[in-house]
Amino acid sequence: MEAAQAAQQREAFRQAVVNTLERRLFYIPSFKIYRGVAGLYDYGPPGCAVKANVLAFWRQHFVLEENMLEVDCPCVTPEVVLKASGHVDKFTDLMVKDEKTGACYRADHLLKDYCNEKLENDPRLTAEKAAELTHVLAVLDDLSSEELGAKIKEYGITAPDTKNSLSDPYPFNLMFQTSIGPSGASPGYMRPETAQGIFVNFKDLYYYNGNKLPFAAAQIGQAFRNEISPRQGLLRVREFTLAEIEHFVDPDDKSHPKFSEVSTLEFLMFPRDDQVSGRQARRIAIGEAVAQGIVNNQTLGYFIGRVYLFLTLLGIDKDRLRFRQHLANEMAHYAADCWDAEIECSHGWIECVGIADRSAFDLLAHTDKSGVELVAHEKFAEPKEVEKLIITPVKKELGLAFKGNQKMVVEALQAMGEKEAMELKATLEEKLEAEFRVCTLDKDVTIKKSMVSISKEIKKEHQRTFTPSVIEPSFGIGRIIYCLYEHSFYTRTSRDGDEQLNVFRFPPLVAPIKCTVFPLVQNQQYEEVAKSIARSLTAVGISYKIDITGTSIGKRYARTDELGVPFAITVDSTTSVTVRERDSKQQIRVNVDEVASLVKEVTDGVSTWPDVLWRYPTHSSEASGSRS
Amino acid sequence: MEAAQAAQQREAFRQAVVNTLERRLFYIPSFKIYRGVAGLYDYGPPGCAVKANVLAFWRQHFVLEENMLEVDCPCVTPEVVLKASGHVDKFTDLMVKDEKTGACYRADHLLKDYCNEKLENDPRLTAEKAAELTHVLAVLDDLSSEELGAKIKEYGITAPDTKNSLSDPYPFNLMFQTSIGPSGASPGYMRPETAQGIFVNFKDLYYYNGNKLPFAAAQIGQAFRNEISPRQGLLRVREFTLAEIEHFVDPDDKSHPKFSEVSTLEFLMFPRDDQVSGRQARRIAIGEAVAQGIVNNQTLGYFIGRVYLFLTLLGIDKDRLRFRQHLANEMAHYAADCWDAEIECSHGWIECVGIADRSAFDLLAHTDKSGVELVAHEKFAEPKEVEKLIITPVKKELGLAFKGNQKMVVEALQAMGEKEAMELKATLEEKLEAEFRVCTLDKDVTIKKSMVSISKEIKKEHQRTFTPSVIEPSFGIGRIIYCLYEHSFYTRTSRDGDEQLNVFRFPPLVAPIKCTVFPLVQNQQYEEVAKSIARSLTAVGISYKIDITGTSIGKRYARTDELGVPFAITVDSTTSVTVRERDSKQQIRVNVDEVASLVKEVTDGVSTWPDVLWRYPTHSSEASGSRS
Repeated sequence: MEAAQAAQQREAFRQAVVNTLERRLFYIPSFKIYRGVAGLYDYGPPGCAVKANVLAFWRQHFVLEENMLEVDCPCVTPEVVLKASGHVDKFTDLMVKDEKTGACYRADHLLKDYCNEKLENDPRLTAEKAAELTHVLAVLDDLSSEELGAKIKEYGITAPDTKNSLSDPYPFNLMFQTSIGPSGASPGYMRPETAQGIFVNFKDLYYYNGNKLPFAAAQIGQAFRNEISPRQGLLRVREFTLAEIEHFVDPDDKSHPKFSEVSTLEFLMFPRDDQVSGRQARRIAIGEAVAQGIVNNQTLGYFIGRVYLFLTLLGIDKDRLRFRQHLANEMAHYAADCWDAEIECSHGWIECVGIADRSAFDLLAHTDKSGVELVAHEKFAEPKEVEKLIITPVKKELGLAFKGNQKMVVEALQAMGEKEAMELKATLEEKLEAEFRVCTLDKDVTIKKSMVSISKEIKKEHQRTFTPSVIEPSFGIGRIIYCLYEHSFYTRTSRDGDEQLNVFRFPPLVAPIKCTVFPLVQNQQYEEVAKSIARSLTAVGISYKIDITGTSIGKRYARTDELGVPFAITVDSTTSVTVRERDSKQQIRVNVDEVASLVKEVTDGVSTWPDVLWRYPTHSSEASGSRS
Repeated sequence: MEAAQAAQQREAFRQAVVNTLERRLFYIPSFKIYRGVAGLYDYGPPGCAVKANVLAFWRQHFVLEENMLEVDCPCVTPEVVLKASGHVDKFTDLMVKDEKTGACYRADHLLKDYCNEKLENDPRLTAEKAAELTHVLAVLDDLSSEELGAKIKEYGITAPDTKNSLSDPYPFNLMFQTSIGPSGASPGYMRPETAQGIFVNFKDLYYYNGNKLPFAAAQIGQAFRNEISPRQGLLRVREFTLAEIEHFVDPDDKSHPKFSEVSTLEFLMFPRDDQVSGRQARRIAIGEAVAQGIVNNQTLGYFIGRVYLFLTLLGIDKDRLRFRQHLANEMAHYAADCWDAEIECSHGWIECVGIADRSAFDLLAHTDKSGVELVAHEKFAEPKEVEKLIITPVKKELGLAFKGNQKMVVEALQAMGEKEAMELKATLEEKLEAEFRVCTLDKDVTIKKSMVSISKEIKKEHQRTFTPSVIEPSFGIGRIIYCLYEHSFYTRTSRDGDEQLNVFRFPPLVAPIKCTVFPLVQNQQYEEVAKSIARSLTAVGISYKIDITGTSIGKRYARTDELGVPFAITVDSTTSVTVRERDSKQQIRVNVDEVASLVKEVTDGVSTWPDVLWRYPTHSSEASGSRS
């Protein structure tokens, strides 16, 4: 019951936040006058400003700070690129259809809802059954199409809206498909992530960087996922802004020169072992985590630290932010290590940033498909003598023996590692033939001594050629912003005690409008002062809102507190004005001439409010009494 | 022949610019390793930085300066929205197909190419034929599908690649089509412009603005056009960034309070009358143009002036920028007036910004389709007595007389203007019946006196309700940037006279990197100074490039001149450094501690280079001799 109460409170809190956000146009359901489209949202004026601020800070904190190479690629992407990346074949969710109406549902969602509903509301549930349903929830993400279908049948799950029976689950590709050019012969997709645009440009970017590793490329842009049935409001949408970094690094050296700058940062981490053994997330210094091998390497650790700084400087509560390591079954087979920055909000812990060491997978995939080598070189100071394994298949012999399968056998021979090759050589020399596994044929074949020559040669090499590893921090900007809204929202009682007033405690960095300008009363003199202050604010690049309505100052404060405006300038004389800080409600007196630069100073973070508080006379609390 | 020579020079200039742009990764043909896709380009690192700078300045110059409401809407758009806007039915180009291979061509392009080719290269062309072809070129945009097809047949135009015969022209919709959600039942498109996202939000934005007019909303974002056969490189692409403003204004009052701030600006304008009578564009003050009625109204004039400032501050050459008024046949029937900012580049005069008074068209279209009233109100200080025309069709009589056509007749009666209605009333009173034109039936009907009552009544009204006009400045960001590249590019001979060096003379505002840091020689002390300067630059938000290679200073300057970097810091001592300006190659000595803030000062435009030149000792030209 306590859990139910907590759930109710979370729901009420979320409603308060979402109502404020919608009423003040932080966001708007898209195409509302046409009854909208699920999973599509507009950013209204304050939301748009918050987003622009978050992206500007991202550029400053990552791109500028690390001298990253920013690129900007199209959303429309030809099929071949997404075939190479695996999205055409594997970027799917399992879907079931209402057999009568054709309405579509995500199969795992229906099963999850069924289990949760039973567990929460069925008093007749046996302990055994409860354990089974709990287990189903735990393994939900790993169930195959057949297993999901079997469970849906077994539990008699029907379409939620009609109670009609459901089809078997089948994969639905989440990419928006389109056609490039007029002929209809070139299928294309709206990109599901921005990363591929960087990978296909690796060669040019490596050259631009003076053929030196490591370097990072970055991209901010729209990405698209045609969700089957979007839920969770702003957290699961069909079009969203991603900010992605691809840091290319020598797989043999993943150290980072600036790691010491973040190594003492301590924050909540949730390593794989702790999750599996049922422990809680715990505070670990990132330097320790790398030293103990919990985090795979320094570069990955460096980015985890930088992400922590980025999110907390935006205003994310550090106690509701954790870095969770992917379990073995969550991680792609090629990934070396993967951590998600998860932020707790009313929907639970939400993945907002993924930080993955993807090894050489992406560059290899595009090398394979395009035939263009996406590699880096390390020039040796002087030539090195290297022992090299030389495998030379004798194609004539192999052709006679294997005919149409020759190509697969040749490829399998050439793909042998050193150990396997030397064992094969020994066997061939001893027995003149050997059994050899060809995976692509799914069988063993007999290799004769005449079919392949295997040797080691000493070669002089001037450079080493290799496929770089890529470490990818990928930011879901919309999710970060939504969590920021929840973490910044609070209510306080109005002075007369009649009302609960909403406040967003955005740091100036994030606030959609930095400052308001209010003439205390409607008179021409004050209005002119207000307008001249407004002009000075524009000149120094500070966004403001001017409110010359006759509404009481208290109401005008409340209106802009709800937009998270950190500073308010009230014009109550022609020579000096009152500046009020949003959260403390403290007020100081500042000369008209100085006020724009003062606001700029605290907004840009050159000074903090406490810094400036002692430099100016405070406005007496009695006088402010009537105003706040 | 002179024309041919000029064309050759233009072509050579363009090649020089484009080669530099591609080599330095200002842009990259997208998906190059897969042989690319026509009409899709990536912005590489310097191009991406230029674009970010242009957009940031756009926000400062328009959104912040005018307190516009910025919004950010999705690219994926449901069909109903683009049905209302007319794009589903009318956003087409006429296409012909190669009858054997199916290859597609724009019909007007083929005809245009044929005419130009004949006019330029056919010595046997008669004067009469030449006149005919010139006429075809002049009316090309106005030809119907049938007329285009007839001309193609008449001239025997065939497919350029195969010489096969061509199909008749037919309309091809230029929107990328897709499907929203998994059912396949909701067609959608990638938006062809950002404006519709603003129109559908009019009601909320008007409310957000305190139910006051005028106000402007703005949006920056991607737009998509599935061009039949993209040509002209970066000027005609399939995906591009638009920045659009929709300024909503009372149709009865299109004055602008800040018009006086731009009215004295004088620049090249090309009014409709001058075009028709074969005159040249001429310099007119925008204040004059509005006063003389050449430009329809102050608000339109204000934006023309602001656009002029925006483009020239970016670095567009004011002598190769003109504002051309649309001819009557170019303009949509509903538009009150329309001007294009055209920039001259090697491709000719290119439309880069459109500034149109679209009247109430867009809001009315969405009101019609959605049933949601998109209107504004003007509250009267005190109620006004207004004479109102009241037309009351007597439906019973009309039904008897017109049966199934009754609805059309009723609507036509109600749509009468005051003059027409009063004339009808007079006729009915005199003759008891009248002939009445019903456009939707395309015929006259006989209206009897009993079928309609027409009167004027005095009513007290508290407010006036009306559909605002919209004035729309719409910026093609990619086109502006490409023209900026051409206007900024020049070559100069290297000091030793052996080479032509490329330079982009970007103003600091636009430059992709503001400053380079070069240690004069490779030594640890200088490198450390360079790195500490780099840190100071990051701290003040100035993008830089550090080059510690042993390459000669002259070469390093040349490399970064080609990226348009305005300032170079050469570390040639541990206490003071040399700062060199790109175009003048002038050099000054500045203390290490001051140099970051100095570069920030000239980059932010707080001071100009001539301003700072006298504040610091100049570096002796003899010493600089070895360096530039």
